[in-house]
Amino acid sequence: MLWFLLVLVTLLLGLVAVAYAWEIYKKMLAFEVGEKRVRELSEIIHKGAMAFLKKEYTWLACFVGGVTILFLYRGVGSAYAFLLGAGCSAGAGWLSMYVATQANGRTAFAATKDAGAALEMAFSGGSVVGMLVVGIGMIGIAASYLFVDESALAAFGMGASSIALFARVGGGIYTKAADVGADLVGKVEAGIPEDDPRNPAVIADNVGDNVGDVAGMSADLFESYVNSIIAAIAIGVVSTDLYADGRTLGRWGVAFPLLLAGWGVISSVSGCLLINPKALASVPLLGTWISWIFGRVEKLPFAKRVMERIRGGDAAFALRMGLFAAGAKMIGGTFVLSMFFFITRGFHVFLAVTSGVLVGILIGFATELFTSSDYRPVKDVASASDTGPATVILSGLSLGMKSTIVPVVLICLSTLASYSLAGVFGVACAAVGMLSITGIALSVDAYGPIADNAGGIAEMSQLPPEVRKITDKLDSIGNTTAAMGKGLAIGSAALTALALFVAYAQAARLKAIDIMDPKVVVGLLLGGVLPFLFCALSIEAVGRAAQAMIEEVRRQFREIAGIMEGTGEPEYEKCVAISTTAALREMILPGVLALLSPIVIGLLLGKAALGGLLGGTIVTGVVLALFMANSGGAWDNAKKYIEEGNFGGKGTPNHAAAVVGDTVGDPFKDTAGPSLNILIKLMTVVALVIAPLFA
Amino acid sequence: MLWFLLVLVTLLLGLVAVAYAWEIYKKMLAFEVGEKRVRELSEIIHKGAMAFLKKEYTWLACFVGGVTILFLYRGVGSAYAFLLGAGCSAGAGWLSMYVATQANGRTAFAATKDAGAALEMAFSGGSVVGMLVVGIGMIGIAASYLFVDESALAAFGMGASSIALFARVGGGIYTKAADVGADLVGKVEAGIPEDDPRNPAVIADNVGDNVGDVAGMSADLFESYVNSIIAAIAIGVVSTDLYADGRTLGRWGVAFPLLLAGWGVISSVSGCLLINPKALASVPLLGTWISWIFGRVEKLPFAKRVMERIRGGDAAFALRMGLFAAGAKMIGGTFVLSMFFFITRGFHVFLAVTSGVLVGILIGFATELFTSSDYRPVKDVASASDTGPATVILSGLSLGMKSTIVPVVLICLSTLASYSLAGVFGVACAAVGMLSITGIALSVDAYGPIADNAGGIAEMSQLPPEVRKITDKLDSIGNTTAAMGKGLAIGSAALTALALFVAYAQAARLKAIDIMDPKVVVGLLLGGVLPFLFCALSIEAVGRAAQAMIEEVRRQFREIAGIMEGTGEPEYEKCVAISTTAALREMILPGVLALLSPIVIGLLLGKAALGGLLGGTIVTGVVLALFMANSGGAWDNAKKYIEEGNFGGKGTPNHAAAVVGDTVGDPFKDTAGPSLNILIKLMTVVALVIAPLFA
Repeated sequence: MLWFLLVLVTLLLGLVAVAYAWEIYKKMLAFEVGEKRVRELSEIIHKGAMAFLKKEYTWLACFVGGVTILFLYRGVGSAYAFLLGAGCSAGAGWLSMYVATQANGRTAFAATKDAGAALEMAFSGGSVVGMLVVGIGMIGIAASYLFVDESALAAFGMGASSIALFARVGGGIYTKAADVGADLVGKVEAGIPEDDPRNPAVIADNVGDNVGDVAGMSADLFESYVNSIIAAIAIGVVSTDLYADGRTLGRWGVAFPLLLAGWGVISSVSGCLLINPKALASVPLLGTWISWIFGRVEKLPFAKRVMERIRGGDAAFALRMGLFAAGAKMIGGTFVLSMFFFITRGFHVFLAVTSGVLVGILIGFATELFTSSDYRPVKDVASASDTGPATVILSGLSLGMKSTIVPVVLICLSTLASYSLAGVFGVACAAVGMLSITGIALSVDAYGPIADNAGGIAEMSQLPPEVRKITDKLDSIGNTTAAMGKGLAIGSAALTALALFVAYAQAARLKAIDIMDPKVVVGLLLGGVLPFLFCALSIEAVGRAAQAMIEEVRRQFREIAGIMEGTGEPEYEKCVAISTTAALREMILPGVLALLSPIVIGLLLGKAALGGLLGGTIVTGVVLALFMANSGGAWDNAKKYIEEGNFGGKGTPNHAAAVVGDTVGDPFKDTAGPSLNILIKLMTVVALVIAPLFA
Repeated sequence: MLWFLLVLVTLLLGLVAVAYAWEIYKKMLAFEVGEKRVRELSEIIHKGAMAFLKKEYTWLACFVGGVTILFLYRGVGSAYAFLLGAGCSAGAGWLSMYVATQANGRTAFAATKDAGAALEMAFSGGSVVGMLVVGIGMIGIAASYLFVDESALAAFGMGASSIALFARVGGGIYTKAADVGADLVGKVEAGIPEDDPRNPAVIADNVGDNVGDVAGMSADLFESYVNSIIAAIAIGVVSTDLYADGRTLGRWGVAFPLLLAGWGVISSVSGCLLINPKALASVPLLGTWISWIFGRVEKLPFAKRVMERIRGGDAAFALRMGLFAAGAKMIGGTFVLSMFFFITRGFHVFLAVTSGVLVGILIGFATELFTSSDYRPVKDVASASDTGPATVILSGLSLGMKSTIVPVVLICLSTLASYSLAGVFGVACAAVGMLSITGIALSVDAYGPIADNAGGIAEMSQLPPEVRKITDKLDSIGNTTAAMGKGLAIGSAALTALALFVAYAQAARLKAIDIMDPKVVVGLLLGGVLPFLFCALSIEAVGRAAQAMIEEVRRQFREIAGIMEGTGEPEYEKCVAISTTAALREMILPGVLALLSPIVIGLLLGKAALGGLLGGTIVTGVVLALFMANSGGAWDNAKKYIEEGNFGGKGTPNHAAAVVGDTVGDPFKDTAGPSLNILIKLMTVVALVIAPLFA
């Protein structure tokens, strides 16, 4: 009975998220784009992106089919869950991109009117993406839980993770190959502006932004989201941490993380509504209910001022407040849920989850401190441009390395706190808490690439320069708030991986994973080296693909008559084809490495060594991911800071030096870094799936 | 009785090494430098280097004094051992630099005669350094073992490690600040050649080569050498792995590693004699004995051809053969020793030690493959210069990351093999085996900077260009053979750290260090992030110091009249002062971090968490050290490859791009990377020293 209710409630909350997304989407579609050129370009990008996904999914379908057959040996349930996980992940990526590529042209056109309209359109697109991802996640988990038990849920997670890894790596390679190719030949060699329609790689570049930043990121966060819930369920169902008499939590341990995530959906929706108050009317039932709450809250003097400022059009403030409101509501709801579920230990569980939410937000602040040009570190990187590219690289690298200490200490504090409060279940719930507001965090994240793309479209369709200014402003606000999203992603990746790791050890019936055992040490060392190898492979892949792109763009500039005068049409589709082929070919090796290494080490050296492998990968994976993301972000913003006119501005040797940093940072922050987040979870979830072999 | 014999034999073998060094040194001094300018410059560099060491040691004396007083609380024995370890390490560094700065001018002058004479002089200097280091190591261990028991030997190791870390970090900062400053302003901005006497930073640069590469490296290898022996002793004395009836090895477990190292001294001396056969006559007693063996061996047809080629002046071949001969002799001696000591298990121990020696050599080959311009990887980095500095950086970074996998797998294989053959004692002995030929490995290593410095002196004293060609050739040969030395250093660092780690766990009476325990996980994460933080600090320190140097050199070019025409004298000593101050100031924070973190984590989170901390540091430390060393080496050689005329050669944009890579690589390979080797051992040995607090 509890089980049925649970599935129902999860399904329902998932549907709420999807319904909200649908309403916003309908409203977004109703906005007509009055410029033919904008409509056309948007259509080209939309089609290019969908064509890539179609090809990618055809390849992945073979992979998923093969693995599903392997799963059949373990039982129909696991095979079903894996297939569902892979399908949901692919579906979330597909729909996200479908929507985002419709929102970009609309945002560009809205920006011809005013900044407020553009923000609304970009954020509408973002929140459709965000809500779809969590909605599909909740529905998918409910649908698999309907037919399989808790242990087979891991197969759902593995499906989601493997698709996410391929999508992230493939998307990352696609976008960076196009980006580097377009920049190096177009901007540097030919001296034409960014997003100039004469550049043959410009379409590939804009398609890439969607493929990498939207589809890749959606699949990534989808994977984080569902795996944090799955880890908490796997641990919750057998956890004896909370009852003094040694009982397991059983179904209550399943219900709590699911409802936590469910409350996160509600919190996210209400946060989105705060940012985009006009959308309120479009969500009839839910809208009235939330309006009622808002009605009460808005009467408070503090809230009144907040609302005024948001309605006054302060976009940065609005996004931040939306996130905070969602976080605050999440914490409030957690209190009620925890006290209801665990009564005497309720307050402990509440604090454990809250530590997760707080640490996620604090990591976001730390990320901002290290990567925003408002603060000292990035200014230092920019000032290193005085002595040329080498010092820019060195200062960016050391900034990234140094920046890892704060998030790692925060993650450690959250781990220690939540563990001492509520055992491993506490750690797992902290991760769920952190990710519960994925709905709004992803909305704010996905809003960025939409605004960025809108800027590209504005440039290519030669809209007035004020339009570009508006989209640039929106984009730069997005960059800052996206730091928060990145904080949640990396923090939760670490906590989720730790929880999955413990779940693996329990499932494999390991009493201890002793690093004094040489096999475990060997596993630890091999696990530690894997993220480095993985990064090397993806950076090299970007390099090779960019090289091919550079040669193609140079060839077109050389061979197509009148291309520079705007009379000859560039062969955009050739560049798209290069990015596509490269992405598909190059994503295989890193993906296979991640999938096979736990299996090979487990079979060769045994389950304890596999535990060591996971430990090693989590440690270097987390640190390396932070390093690469922050170095990359800092270089990017140092370049932008110089472009704003500091240290000489555009066209100076300082700027050239900063561009070198930015180019090095591109595969760091958009290909290798974010893939590592998925890598560590994919490897642990693969171990969890194969654990019964060793038990 | 056994104990007394042992101390005596160890002392004696140490004295053999020192005696050999002394004989070679006397012969070296007998060579008169006939050029006044060369003599003067050599004297200036010698004095500058000694002045730096004097200042550095004054600071370190306070530190050593303070820690010795702390040790007094644990007992006079530990305090004595710590003081002795620190003193021996400092002494080895001091004497090495004293000798090397006398060999450089002689090598430059010898090169005015012929290449053979120059090789002999440079290698004589190198082998004095190499033999002194191992000799002092053996004598130091014997001297402390005379008064303290096995457990207090760790204090000797801690003394050696802490001085080594400060020397490496300080020396690395000194040399790179001077190098970057001299290159960026002199070569790039003012357009004068390298080592031009008009460059105010040229003396600091040449002093830096000695301070960093000679004193730093000697202290580094001294520390590796003694700690591998100390770890083997600490484990050997309580090891029950080799006797079926559960007896401990006791004093036999002490004797074996000591004699292994002792045989390594003999093997090294004979290898050095092979390279420098004329030195044979100068070592009367030992000489006759070895001559006798050589006399037999040389009659073999294979050996005859080898000797002909060496006497024919093929320096690269000579160095390689010397190393191989020493390695082969070492393996042969190990067989005899193992069979004698452990009879039935003798062959197992022999194989364990041999696995160490072989893996050390194989890591050397792998290093060469990834960092020599003879092979594909470095050529790829050089070819990336076609698309500018950013792609040079990216390809170097991914090369370094990828290159970590081979050595790590080799280390894992050696760990698994030696453990399954002879338990943890086997792992420890594998490290001793690897390092036993430190005498000759360091000779070959130290030969490089001497040849490099000789080139600088030749340039500054305006000797004919043929002289510079000879020294350049010697230098480039040294670079290749030094890869072997680096392989031994990093491989043995990993194995020694693992052995010390187990010794810590035994001393702290830890039954297991279970990474499912959240405190251990937290330790692991914090340990994993420490090497990144440490690298960031040292890279930043180099950056700050280089910045100050750049400004000073620019000021002198601006303010000193006639400096460019050669009529005005540059103020060399100001640049020396900048490097000195920076090195001394900036070495403190990284050093203190390494020393205090095990203590703080141990006290705060307990002994298991400290175990996790060590595990994390070993994993990321080893991988990061390999990454930084290989990236740096590859960039350096890619630049040299272009300077040889490939991809356009000097003065082209390709060359400029490669110079950026080389500048980024400088602190990688000469400051941060090698310091990490020491970091991981210092932290484990500190843990071993404080372990009784937790037992």
